[in-house]
Amino acid sequence: MKEIILNLQKNSNEPLYIQIYKYIREEITANRIKRGAKLPSIRHLADYLNVSKITVDNAYQQLLVEGYIESRQRSGMYVQHIEEMLITPIEVNKMNICPTPSFNHIKYDFHYGTIDTDSFNFNIWRKLTSQVLKSSKVQLLQYGEPQGELDFREEIAKYLRLSRGVLCSSDQIIVTSGTHNSLQLLCELIDYNDRSIAIENPGWSNAKFIFEKNNFEITPIPLDKDGICLKTLKENSSKFVYVTPSHQFPSGIVMPITRRQHLLRWAKNSKTFIIEDDYDSEFRYMGRPIPSLQGLDDDERVIYLGTFSKSLAPSLRMSYMVLPKKLLDKYKQNVSMYEQSTSRLNQKTLQLFMADGYWERHIQKMRKVYRKKYSLLIKSIEDYLNSNVRLIGGNAGLHILLEIRNGMSEDMIIQKTEMAGVKIYPTSKYWMTHSDLEYPIFLIGFGGLSENQIIEGIELLGDVLNSN
Amino acid sequence: MKEIILNLQKNSNEPLYIQIYKYIREEITANRIKRGAKLPSIRHLADYLNVSKITVDNAYQQLLVEGYIESRQRSGMYVQHIEEMLITPIEVNKMNICPTPSFNHIKYDFHYGTIDTDSFNFNIWRKLTSQVLKSSKVQLLQYGEPQGELDFREEIAKYLRLSRGVLCSSDQIIVTSGTHNSLQLLCELIDYNDRSIAIENPGWSNAKFIFEKNNFEITPIPLDKDGICLKTLKENSSKFVYVTPSHQFPSGIVMPITRRQHLLRWAKNSKTFIIEDDYDSEFRYMGRPIPSLQGLDDDERVIYLGTFSKSLAPSLRMSYMVLPKKLLDKYKQNVSMYEQSTSRLNQKTLQLFMADGYWERHIQKMRKVYRKKYSLLIKSIEDYLNSNVRLIGGNAGLHILLEIRNGMSEDMIIQKTEMAGVKIYPTSKYWMTHSDLEYPIFLIGFGGLSENQIIEGIELLGDVLNSN
Repeated sequence: MKEIILNLQKNSNEPLYIQIYKYIREEITANRIKRGAKLPSIRHLADYLNVSKITVDNAYQQLLVEGYIESRQRSGMYVQHIEEMLITPIEVNKMNICPTPSFNHIKYDFHYGTIDTDSFNFNIWRKLTSQVLKSSKVQLLQYGEPQGELDFREEIAKYLRLSRGVLCSSDQIIVTSGTHNSLQLLCELIDYNDRSIAIENPGWSNAKFIFEKNNFEITPIPLDKDGICLKTLKENSSKFVYVTPSHQFPSGIVMPITRRQHLLRWAKNSKTFIIEDDYDSEFRYMGRPIPSLQGLDDDERVIYLGTFSKSLAPSLRMSYMVLPKKLLDKYKQNVSMYEQSTSRLNQKTLQLFMADGYWERHIQKMRKVYRKKYSLLIKSIEDYLNSNVRLIGGNAGLHILLEIRNGMSEDMIIQKTEMAGVKIYPTSKYWMTHSDLEYPIFLIGFGGLSENQIIEGIELLGDVLNSN
Repeated sequence: MKEIILNLQKNSNEPLYIQIYKYIREEITANRIKRGAKLPSIRHLADYLNVSKITVDNAYQQLLVEGYIESRQRSGMYVQHIEEMLITPIEVNKMNICPTPSFNHIKYDFHYGTIDTDSFNFNIWRKLTSQVLKSSKVQLLQYGEPQGELDFREEIAKYLRLSRGVLCSSDQIIVTSGTHNSLQLLCELIDYNDRSIAIENPGWSNAKFIFEKNNFEITPIPLDKDGICLKTLKENSSKFVYVTPSHQFPSGIVMPITRRQHLLRWAKNSKTFIIEDDYDSEFRYMGRPIPSLQGLDDDERVIYLGTFSKSLAPSLRMSYMVLPKKLLDKYKQNVSMYEQSTSRLNQKTLQLFMADGYWERHIQKMRKVYRKKYSLLIKSIEDYLNSNVRLIGGNAGLHILLEIRNGMSEDMIIQKTEMAGVKIYPTSKYWMTHSDLEYPIFLIGFGGLSENQIIEGIELLGDVLNSN
């Protein structure tokens, strides 16, 4: 494609992004890029073509607006499944090109945010939605509580107590539309003078983004084998620390109970607040569940964040936050100024789903499904990958890490795997400081793939990595 | 009740808020405060009992947690409709009290945020929800587009073009979970150097709160008969101005087209951006609809905010924002860091609702319903209130203003009307600067009341106001 661009640049007055857009559009209509195929990331294509990211972004936006491609959050751009597509005769020869490997479709996408959807009980959800729409009509239409519906919060409190040892009244729970929403609201409750936070490094970059835009002073703290390095943390005087102890993102480390207790003791002594992001906690494949920091805490130092995105469905936009008293008071002072982001209908449907026992059944089922996939993933890695990879996981959650020591750079691995039709996710962006990784480390999610896809995908990955 | 408190304080070690909580709880269980009754506002009760607001708030929170009362956003606390309530024998005599007038239930609540719910087509909504749950299963569960579903945005763009003259592609639309959400996101897209804004005074206090927490320098601009006073605005050098031209909140002034054109011309010359909050625009009872500022603008200076909260249902949490190119680019640079707040299911259901023509039918029906209620309200005011009131309206929206010149202060009006069982809403809090109102002005909403309730409520209001 590089050749085309160089040619076109010489020959045309059209803006570069239009040329790129037209080229991709024609590849799609001629079916040389298949439906459902994933386009290269903006960064990747921009690098490849040696054009700016804005140029590629504009080309993609035009394709998006016209319906040729769709955008999937945290995943990228995919060619749309359009029922009838006009196949226009493409003057390929005129353009003098060969299909680039970059556009081979991705068959095995090991994204870490996608969930298994086969097991979602649509019938029950539909039945309960109907039930809610029949029963609470008038109330249902007016504004609900800013904090979220009381009955729903009661169900959440009950579930958290039984499953995570979180101890709170429904009054401490704020229903939100996602972890971003929870974090943003939380930041707003924190006095400007207290806006300093220590975060895991590597850590979830979206959380860092939210703290940054709320003017927090951010200190990255390295990890050790048990999670956030307490030794380094103790040298830090931030008022807050953000941790993902159930399944550290991205490393997968599960914080053992001793570290949790030490962390809590330090927090109590130093008067630090802990933000515990328990995003993955339902899925632990070995050993007993470890109680939440919030449940072990006796000094009201923990803000607990949970979500239904991984365990139920991310499209529902249903998450929650448990506030300790001090921050709850702050929230209540201004509660009339906040609006609830989730719809009352969804809250009430999910509340019934929980109250009628479907939620518990769903979690148990998903745990089995994911445990099986996890085992299959591990076995496939053993079967197909050489010993030049090191698996970093925690026997929990919906992803593992793979450290790849075959001599390839991160970028080369990305290129070659994509060419082969496999997508795995680089982790360099999760380091706040320049990452001093000896070898590139990749995220491999498995939630959204079928068992066969996992096996085939890892086999294909093996072909790529072992060939070096 | 004051007597009780004084007595109890002498006799008890219990915290004051517990005493108040117990008293109210007993009044509720003995049915002396009826189901659905509205409790006095925290401020009002605190003043009356001469205790702190926190004390009353704590008492209310306890009642809330235990399910005796429920909180309705922007409205207050209401006694819950609990099917079976234990009636415990109340030792009233022991307490030596008389029911206080403060606890007479409010029969006529002229709140400005409630909508008419009788006309919502639950059957259709249920049918469409089912349809969506049957058709798009797998896609429906995964993350949707951060910006909102493309098809849904297409419907919104189409609707806005036809109904408000807003000219945009679906690409410029961001779906949000409410006006707060829209404003917060918008603030985040604005460079720190540009965070200065002129707002209407009086104006919507929640908007001011959001600008404040995002570190905007805020300048209040007075109104004249046509809306925000352009003369004063021109002396100001804020980079942004926030207006509610379809139905100024709270005054109800509808900005005529000449003012809109002058405003736009000034914005173009001074390179100011206009935030147009078109919250009430579907309901105009006289005259032709006035095109939106966005549609009249030719310099990409207008950010358009719309919502389904007043026209469909506030519980759905569905709103949107149309960004001009410059801010849209900014959004797209960071789009991977934003998450969509509304559920995919709701978006798709509403999209079908619009695509199948139900939305248009709904709006037409609601317009008739509200036009009738509006006329009835005006007529009742003419019939029952003396000439010592002045009506300020705009023949639009779901509320009017009443200037009350009978010699009563704002607080006295609040007290006496509540005692009579009528709730009207003071506007002093909407003035940023000390309001120099000659006479108190009250918001009278009518969306959520039946026609009979409007007539009876105004008659009752007349009894109160005319008695002075």
